[in-house]
Amino acid sequence: MSAVVTLAVDAMGGDHGLPVTVPAVARILARHPDLHVIMVGEPSALAAALKKEKLDDHPRLALTPASEVVAMDDPVAVALRQKKDSSMRVAINQVKEGRALAAVSAGNTGALMAVSRFVLKTLPGVDRPAICTAIPTAKGHCHMLDLGANVDSEPKHLLQFALMGQAVVRAVDGLSAPRVALLNIGEEDIKGNEQIKEAATLMQQAADLNYAGFVEGNGIFVGDVDVVVCDGFVGNVSLKTMEGAASMIGGMIREEAGRSLLRKLSGLFALPLLRGLKHRLDPERYNGASLVGLNGIVVKSHGGTGVEGFVSALEVAVLEAERNVPALIRDALAPAETS
Amino acid sequence: MSAVVTLAVDAMGGDHGLPVTVPAVARILARHPDLHVIMVGEPSALAAALKKEKLDDHPRLALTPASEVVAMDDPVAVALRQKKDSSMRVAINQVKEGRALAAVSAGNTGALMAVSRFVLKTLPGVDRPAICTAIPTAKGHCHMLDLGANVDSEPKHLLQFALMGQAVVRAVDGLSAPRVALLNIGEEDIKGNEQIKEAATLMQQAADLNYAGFVEGNGIFVGDVDVVVCDGFVGNVSLKTMEGAASMIGGMIREEAGRSLLRKLSGLFALPLLRGLKHRLDPERYNGASLVGLNGIVVKSHGGTGVEGFVSALEVAVLEAERNVPALIRDALAPAETS
Repeated sequence: MSAVVTLAVDAMGGDHGLPVTVPAVARILARHPDLHVIMVGEPSALAAALKKEKLDDHPRLALTPASEVVAMDDPVAVALRQKKDSSMRVAINQVKEGRALAAVSAGNTGALMAVSRFVLKTLPGVDRPAICTAIPTAKGHCHMLDLGANVDSEPKHLLQFALMGQAVVRAVDGLSAPRVALLNIGEEDIKGNEQIKEAATLMQQAADLNYAGFVEGNGIFVGDVDVVVCDGFVGNVSLKTMEGAASMIGGMIREEAGRSLLRKLSGLFALPLLRGLKHRLDPERYNGASLVGLNGIVVKSHGGTGVEGFVSALEVAVLEAERNVPALIRDALAPAETS
Repeated sequence: MSAVVTLAVDAMGGDHGLPVTVPAVARILARHPDLHVIMVGEPSALAAALKKEKLDDHPRLALTPASEVVAMDDPVAVALRQKKDSSMRVAINQVKEGRALAAVSAGNTGALMAVSRFVLKTLPGVDRPAICTAIPTAKGHCHMLDLGANVDSEPKHLLQFALMGQAVVRAVDGLSAPRVALLNIGEEDIKGNEQIKEAATLMQQAADLNYAGFVEGNGIFVGDVDVVVCDGFVGNVSLKTMEGAASMIGGMIREEAGRSLLRKLSGLFALPLLRGLKHRLDPERYNGASLVGLNGIVVKSHGGTGVEGFVSALEVAVLEAERNVPALIRDALAPAETS
């Protein structure tokens, strides 16, 4: 039923590179019988890793060479101007040149956004691409954007993020009228909120947007909205705050479990419960953020993720490619272009 | 050893009012044998509540009448201009007039900040007061500010928050050189970060500030810094994000525990562990945010807190009064006035 999809994978990116990307690609190819993958990287290292994984003569896997790697701490300028033959850039080139429908990389976010934007360009009506990801909620998940591509977003940018988020959720979650909320703080009369209020007005006036009003930071997790829109500075702090809080709570559970014999026993008995919890909050399960608003699909994996997490990011790319998210975003944003 | 402290308590504020404030005051008076309290509220209701709690002839408790109450949804303008005889305002007047060293209210934050600022005025060198509270970390706690009093903070405001936060932590935690960090996002080269970079430069140059560099949202909880400085919009979203994430995780633990017999048993056995966890993260234990930068101490309690939470807020006020935090902030900020 689904179209034939080809993914371009930056085989070298992230903290781990080949030991993560190659087994993940093996798994995604096994899961999707029609999927094709182009792995991009340093040819001899890549060939050796593929051989080790018995992927060296896989009929749906191609290898494209790239002589450089963008390091996790490379400044954007280096990735953009000096490493023109990086595995990241060559993977994105595959999308630009129509050989792949989506690129996936665990390389550094700033570089990935800059190179993607430079190579693919933004869609008509999109001033600024954004980073969008699924966040677990009490009732399932929501999508949140922008998570750090932009700071000092203006009201019109927030409206664009709203329309892009809506298009993503329609495509990947199959909701026809996702509830779209704007992240705000409780106090109404504080100076400087004008920007948020103006964005709210724009969203209320937008013809094809199911605007659900404001949510505060705690409202992200309630599950009553499907898209949470915010500036990238705020979104990035919020995303990392939730990661930090969850990680601290996990650490405290482990500490408490080790504290006394009674608690050790209690920790042991608590294992099925904690496993259920871990499954619902697993960062690897939620790995894979989309760079939305570009003329092509680019998915960013966490740099430090393991094989399972990288598979999740590949799944996001497959789904967005099957549903052709960029075309949906183009349709949603095109009217805005004329205003 | 500690000076005689008198607190002024807004007896009517918050979601619950007297049923929370009166038992909390009974408890704090029992804990601190030198403490005096002025309870401010509607005289007959207050007298009845005190009688019920057998506080009606307590030697260290006085009653001051106020005919109005600021509602949780009252706009700032109403609290400020129309309800001049509110329990909130009269409690703050006690500080202004030297009858109390600190005021505590569970009333609405926007109104409390506006009325406090109007009545008490800011300290020399302070352009904008801020909201500061303790946040649990893996190693104990840190203090974070601003949590929503200001949006669009300029670099010089962030520096003032840093100096105020340092003074608070020196006073209440007894640390001589608290490590002060600036909340930022990972990407270095993003446009608009100039403001944060400029604030970082100001903090590096500040003579008496142990500036520890940037932290990201997840860094708040690591426990390697004592003060986290941010703009109020960002800080409020971050604070509410952590509350929301913790609350979702708590809900999931309860759900998982009820899911099957095995997990029900596992949930039962996990109780001591979860109790330990709850103690470390208990929002009631961390209740009580300080409005810093004013010519007097004002502590804001969560509107929905119970007795134990209100007691925590009263404890914050007692400690800040004993250590004379406003004088320490004045000393820390005074040099900035001349620049």
